[in-house]
Amino acid sequence: MVVVEVTVIPIGAEGPSLSKYVAGALDKLEGYDVEYELTSSGTIMEGDLDEVLEAARAMHENLFDEEIERVVTILQIDDRRDKDLTIEGKKGSVKNKMKG
Amino acid sequence: MVVVEVTVIPIGAEGPSLSKYVAGALDKLEGYDVEYELTSSGTIMEGDLDEVLEAARAMHENLFDEEIERVVTILQIDDRRDKDLTIEGKKGSVKNKMKG
Amino acid sequence: MVVVEVTVIPIGAEGPSLSKYVAGALDKLEGYDVEYELTSSGTIMEGDLDEVLEAARAMHENLFDEEIERVVTILQIDDRRDKDLTIEGKKGSVKNKMKG
Amino acid sequence: MVVVEVTVIPIGAEGPSLSKYVAGALDKLEGYDVEYELTSSGTIMEGDLDEVLEAARAMHENLFDEEIERVVTILQIDDRRDKDLTIEGKKGSVKNKMKG
Repeated sequence: MVVVEVTVIPIGAEGPSLSKYVAGALDKLEGYDVEYELTSSGTIMEGDLDEVLEAARAMHENLFDEEIERVVTILQIDDRRDKDLTIEGKKGSVKNKMKG
Repeated sequence: MVVVEVTVIPIGAEGPSLSKYVAGALDKLEGYDVEYELTSSGTIMEGDLDEVLEAARAMHENLFDEEIERVVTILQIDDRRDKDLTIEGKKGSVKNKMKG
Repeated sequence: MVVVEVTVIPIGAEGPSLSKYVAGALDKLEGYDVEYELTSSGTIMEGDLDEVLEAARAMHENLFDEEIERVVTILQIDDRRDKDLTIEGKKGSVKNKMKG
Repeated sequence: MVVVEVTVIPIGAEGPSLSKYVAGALDKLEGYDVEYELTSSGTIMEGDLDEVLEAARAMHENLFDEEIERVVTILQIDDRRDKDLTIEGKKGSVKNKMKG
């Protein structure tokens, strides 16, 4: 189980709005066995590394179906093998250790 | 108003846990005029660009106070000038456009 | 043809040096049909998207063979479909347009 | 001395080419006390952390002067305090440890 953040950025989209492209990419996740959390900076997925990478690839590919010719996609893979990483587990560990 | 994701990564920490360092860095944010959202992949801040960069710098610096000698910090700055970006606004725009 | 930057970061390595891990990961690239350029910030690969992703996955995996239990890997995929992207082509285009 | 990679991405640029924007941003570096290396994935700067962050900020800002309304800028800061990091030093350490 890994936690991976994916940010898809269309290059040469008309105008400064990106939400249409992100929404379309997220709709692709239905076909994959991953949990995800939409944040204001990207999409965070939790699952098996191979499955998550395939899902990220599908998100990336989806932008080319929207008349975009160039896509920059950023992946931040967090892979821990001594215990399973989960979206909720990672956030909980940090919150428990904060003083504030 | 910008939205900036900050990920602080200590190099040479003892063992694979990172949450102590992230929690300490987040405690530093009290002194800054930024809103933030903790995600499982980083910290997302919303505010004035200068203020957010100062806050990110303070988070980065905090790790050196914890006996760490090397820190990799990743910033993803999303800066839109035709309208104010906010954490909730960005998420809402995407959700409204999803089919699923 | 895409250009992809890969940064592999071992968590919980002994001490602040990272070069051993990067070198080991690079040695894995011999088995893949990709061109690469070592930079001071990561490894940039040029090739077919599927092949590059497999190579990046092998680099990531290699760190776990070095007694590391957690690895953060960052990929920045630049994928342009109206013409082939290459490492030298991308740098040349920028240099040609600089005034200085 | 830190090593920082900066990638500036204009959103809503006309067409898929980015080199004009990168070239303009690089021309801004003349006014700063930083060394830099252009790679096919971004610009890597070496210098004092404060100076490098100011230079990165100037690069980011420059895109708004080119009729762009939204810019995504990614910074990867590598900051080591037990010895000075340099662009050439980082690459040399890795090359010395490679088998191939």
